[in-house]
Amino acid sequence: MVEVRAVRTEDKAGWQRLYEGYHLFYERPDLPQAFFDQAFERLIDRKPGDFHGLVAEADGQLLGLTHYVFHPHMWRPEGVCYLQDLFTSDEARGRGVGRALIEAVYAAADAEGAPSVYWLTQEFNYAGRMLYDRVGTRTPFIRYNRPA
Amino acid sequence: MVEVRAVRTEDKAGWQRLYEGYHLFYERPDLPQAFFDQAFERLIDRKPGDFHGLVAEADGQLLGLTHYVFHPHMWRPEGVCYLQDLFTSDEARGRGVGRALIEAVYAAADAEGAPSVYWLTQEFNYAGRMLYDRVGTRTPFIRYNRPA
Amino acid sequence: MVEVRAVRTEDKAGWQRLYEGYHLFYERPDLPQAFFDQAFERLIDRKPGDFHGLVAEADGQLLGLTHYVFHPHMWRPEGVCYLQDLFTSDEARGRGVGRALIEAVYAAADAEGAPSVYWLTQEFNYAGRMLYDRVGTRTPFIRYNRPA
Amino acid sequence: MVEVRAVRTEDKAGWQRLYEGYHLFYERPDLPQAFFDQAFERLIDRKPGDFHGLVAEADGQLLGLTHYVFHPHMWRPEGVCYLQDLFTSDEARGRGVGRALIEAVYAAADAEGAPSVYWLTQEFNYAGRMLYDRVGTRTPFIRYNRPA
Repeated sequence: MVEVRAVRTEDKAGWQRLYEGYHLFYERPDLPQAFFDQAFERLIDRKPGDFHGLVAEADGQLLGLTHYVFHPHMWRPEGVCYLQDLFTSDEARGRGVGRALIEAVYAAADAEGAPSVYWLTQEFNYAGRMLYDRVGTRTPFIRYNRPA
Repeated sequence: MVEVRAVRTEDKAGWQRLYEGYHLFYERPDLPQAFFDQAFERLIDRKPGDFHGLVAEADGQLLGLTHYVFHPHMWRPEGVCYLQDLFTSDEARGRGVGRALIEAVYAAADAEGAPSVYWLTQEFNYAGRMLYDRVGTRTPFIRYNRPA
Repeated sequence: MVEVRAVRTEDKAGWQRLYEGYHLFYERPDLPQAFFDQAFERLIDRKPGDFHGLVAEADGQLLGLTHYVFHPHMWRPEGVCYLQDLFTSDEARGRGVGRALIEAVYAAADAEGAPSVYWLTQEFNYAGRMLYDRVGTRTPFIRYNRPA
Repeated sequence: MVEVRAVRTEDKAGWQRLYEGYHLFYERPDLPQAFFDQAFERLIDRKPGDFHGLVAEADGQLLGLTHYVFHPHMWRPEGVCYLQDLFTSDEARGRGVGRALIEAVYAAADAEGAPSVYWLTQEFNYAGRMLYDRVGTRTPFIRYNRPA
């Protein structure tokens, strides 16, 4: 059985392995250790308004992670929940880990009183979108960035 | 000349006319007056972490508005700037008002030390995208929502 | 008034000016004269199964062109009509020339007994799509090419 | 080993099973037998300019099909090849059948002297696009239809 729970201090190694996989997916290899140290510290020593981290665990092994944050929204006074990072390991495939993580964020958003949850994904993230089409609703919104 | 500046208490009527236009664009007519009262109050009596509002003014008339917020980001410790709302009136067309508003948000993000700015727009918002392609960079990211 | 009619031998100069504009839009400047000679000859001396050409004329001036072809279709024994090229001059703007050309292709397809008409356009052809959304239906189909 | 070859009269039953699967994918169940009879006859008793059919066979079993046609093109006097239908059975998965079929069309297009090949697919055909991104090039072209 897969359990989804808040990330804990003793998860550091397993969490980092997953988060490295996530950044490899976005072609960001070779991030320094300090990057992971600081990111993990934010999740553990959580300041008001900062990110929450969840991990999926089965048989003592971490199979996936998600990081989400609540931020203000002009039309929704209660704010919204932005699910920024989601990753599952190869071993997790077909075990419902991605879905369990997203649904845990939904539950956390309900508990926070800000049930509106959204995330962004690359149009060509086919494997991800196979899941997202089942647990979410595609919108016609696309993202623009300030030029680098 | 068009001036972009922070929204002020005396802008209420002109700001509301623009923000009604914005919501009409997204097919949300008939929003109650309380909606506009609360939104405006948030912009004026700004709490830490909440939205900033800018307006574009020429000859004593408000021609456009934008609302943006800074929120945490997992990979960028300094956070990012989300430009949520942007609207210009019909009279503003061709006067560079939309560009001036976006560039004012860029400047505000620089001043905040969180220079990364992004926004979302519907794929079929052709008029908007004509501008966004000039001042921003389209990304392959699309938005998914939690089902209503 | 704008008249849409089959291209004629005496249209060569006006047609070429438009077709050059079309290819400039797709960033193909400097096509050789032989290209235009051969393309025009195909439209005039039309072989069975080859392209049809229409032009839009007002006050003795050509304001737009379209080229279309019928080709077999596996699920529609009567075949389908592919509207490949469409272009209107700057002077034509706001006069309904694009719409008139597309509707003339619809009529030609009806006359041919192959009423199904389609065309392809770049996702970011905003000006074109403003028209296409009114006279056509966007589909979720995207085009893949054999690599060059 | 998978062999790709032209469809033959004796393939009727196996071909129809595959083509029914293809139409189910596009949510067209219950096509009449006459539809399949006529489509198959076109592939066998091929008239000039009409569709070609290929099947992929292994161990006496048909695992996939493709139908393609050459049609005129305004900018390419030699014409282009439109790969309209492509389907592989569940048993074919992971055996390179889809790729083999597409590459056989490439070879046929070369032999015809019209090497430009294209196809259309739904933006959300994730499984198909995983293959298409490897054997083809995504373009920014989207399809519009005449309204039904």
